[in-house]
Amino acid sequence: MASSKHGRKKQNDRKTAKAARLDVVEQMTAHQNSTSKALSLPPGAVDLGAIDTRGTPIGPQDKHEAARAMAEIAPELAALQEKLVAEAIRGGRRRILLILQGMDTSGKDGVVKHVLGLVNPAGVHLASFKKPTAEELRHDFLWRIAGQVPQAGQIGVFNRSQYEDVLVVRVHDLVPRQEWSGRYARINAFERKQVREGTVIVKCFLHISKDTQRERLAARLDDPTKYWKYNPADLTERGFWPHYQDAYADALRRCNTVGAPWFVVPADRKWYRNWAIASLLLETLRQLDPQYPPADFDVDTERQRLAES
Amino acid sequence: MASSKHGRKKQNDRKTAKAARLDVVEQMTAHQNSTSKALSLPPGAVDLGAIDTRGTPIGPQDKHEAARAMAEIAPELAALQEKLVAEAIRGGRRRILLILQGMDTSGKDGVVKHVLGLVNPAGVHLASFKKPTAEELRHDFLWRIAGQVPQAGQIGVFNRSQYEDVLVVRVHDLVPRQEWSGRYARINAFERKQVREGTVIVKCFLHISKDTQRERLAARLDDPTKYWKYNPADLTERGFWPHYQDAYADALRRCNTVGAPWFVVPADRKWYRNWAIASLLLETLRQLDPQYPPADFDVDTERQRLAES
Repeated sequence: MASSKHGRKKQNDRKTAKAARLDVVEQMTAHQNSTSKALSLPPGAVDLGAIDTRGTPIGPQDKHEAARAMAEIAPELAALQEKLVAEAIRGGRRRILLILQGMDTSGKDGVVKHVLGLVNPAGVHLASFKKPTAEELRHDFLWRIAGQVPQAGQIGVFNRSQYEDVLVVRVHDLVPRQEWSGRYARINAFERKQVREGTVIVKCFLHISKDTQRERLAARLDDPTKYWKYNPADLTERGFWPHYQDAYADALRRCNTVGAPWFVVPADRKWYRNWAIASLLLETLRQLDPQYPPADFDVDTERQRLAES
Repeated sequence: MASSKHGRKKQNDRKTAKAARLDVVEQMTAHQNSTSKALSLPPGAVDLGAIDTRGTPIGPQDKHEAARAMAEIAPELAALQEKLVAEAIRGGRRRILLILQGMDTSGKDGVVKHVLGLVNPAGVHLASFKKPTAEELRHDFLWRIAGQVPQAGQIGVFNRSQYEDVLVVRVHDLVPRQEWSGRYARINAFERKQVREGTVIVKCFLHISKDTQRERLAARLDDPTKYWKYNPADLTERGFWPHYQDAYADALRRCNTVGAPWFVVPADRKWYRNWAIASLLLETLRQLDPQYPPADFDVDTERQRLAES
């Protein structure tokens, strides 16, 4: 151990730094699951119009605070993710499925980039569900979904999901009402099955205002480096805004189960949206509390074998 | 434009900073593809023993320089990757396939975490090829590989690859010599097909010494948070070290094609390995020079539609 004056000084500095870190950790632990609580769907009827799309009900109140908070979240998120992966290597069954839903421009892609970009890509399974292909349409609506659920140890991410089949499908009557109306129960059953197999499901509705969507679409038309993100069909869908809000309200209400709850993420501000989902993910991982598995071999035997090799 | 003395001072500072950045950019451009050149397989017979596993033939010479270099590479890598993705949205066919091969502990997983972790996970397709499953064994050895090639716009990453079928398979005679000896030509043909479809293939052999492997295996046995990375079978394979080196030398020599060249990455030092592969990836993307695609809609019409929506 360092014994010179200089060494003690450094040691004290380290102690102070460590204490400061512990303070932060304790503070965070005290608030454990507080983001989940603050952003959970209010009980009863779902009135999306009553939930502020620019709200900051918990956590950072401005961009700078959010950047600081993200810098704190990142290492813990990565460390917990590694443990989740490690656990699965030795037979652990647990995994996470993050479902991202929201109107066009609500920031689903941004969350993938800025939040999932914080963890090891080797432990992430990302699936984007676009307009179904001819082959997908020949199967039940859950067929393509079932093929993309995360493996043990993974953080699965659905950019759009099974919910499209009670959203765009319902708004445009792509199947008869009788058919889509039965899907809420089928989705709940499907999700229950995933939960039984070891998946923690975190469903996020990225909640933006119609004005914010206008601004973001305008930005795509004003900047040639964003043309590729623009699709004239998005504007057509914008015309169905109230129908989509109704469809979302129903999907959220009817599929807000204990095992697979919905969160409403105010998403007019990108920094809040990213922080909120990173925080939901962190709380989920903390609650899972994954553990490095013990050796499934005799350590001393292996040390000896290695020494002889 | 700022006109006060203070304003001019700030402006000059900015100019200086900009000039410094331009210097860096020019310097980097001047050396374009220099990492690719420095790490390309020497012509003629492959003598892996003659290539220093601790070498730093180009680029950073210590950990701190490497950290600085990585911080410079990261934003350019991410920006170029976004353009590659954007290009593909409008029909572009180009993509990258990074193939990682190397002995156990050579750092394939570390590259995925530290290099691929620098870019948007939405544009990465990662495939890890472990011991083939019963189903995979019922098919030709390229069957499972073909199912994982990257889509247009993606950076595909193979953590192990088709080369296992001329490495472990050859070392342990898992198929008759006559069979594996025909695979080099079949791999070349397969890779040629990928190149024709728009894939740039970057094959990296992570070159470590037998001593470094011992250190890294020992580290896994000394640290309970690393037990999950240890597999007694790895030690058995270590016993075949010279056979693997021979098999690698042959695979590198016989499959070092113009369209899909091999690079030998000195990998005893993790910071050098990560920098080298990030730099190879950056040079590849610079050479591809992906472009944001033009609008495939009438911008003014869309502006008007948006204004009316």
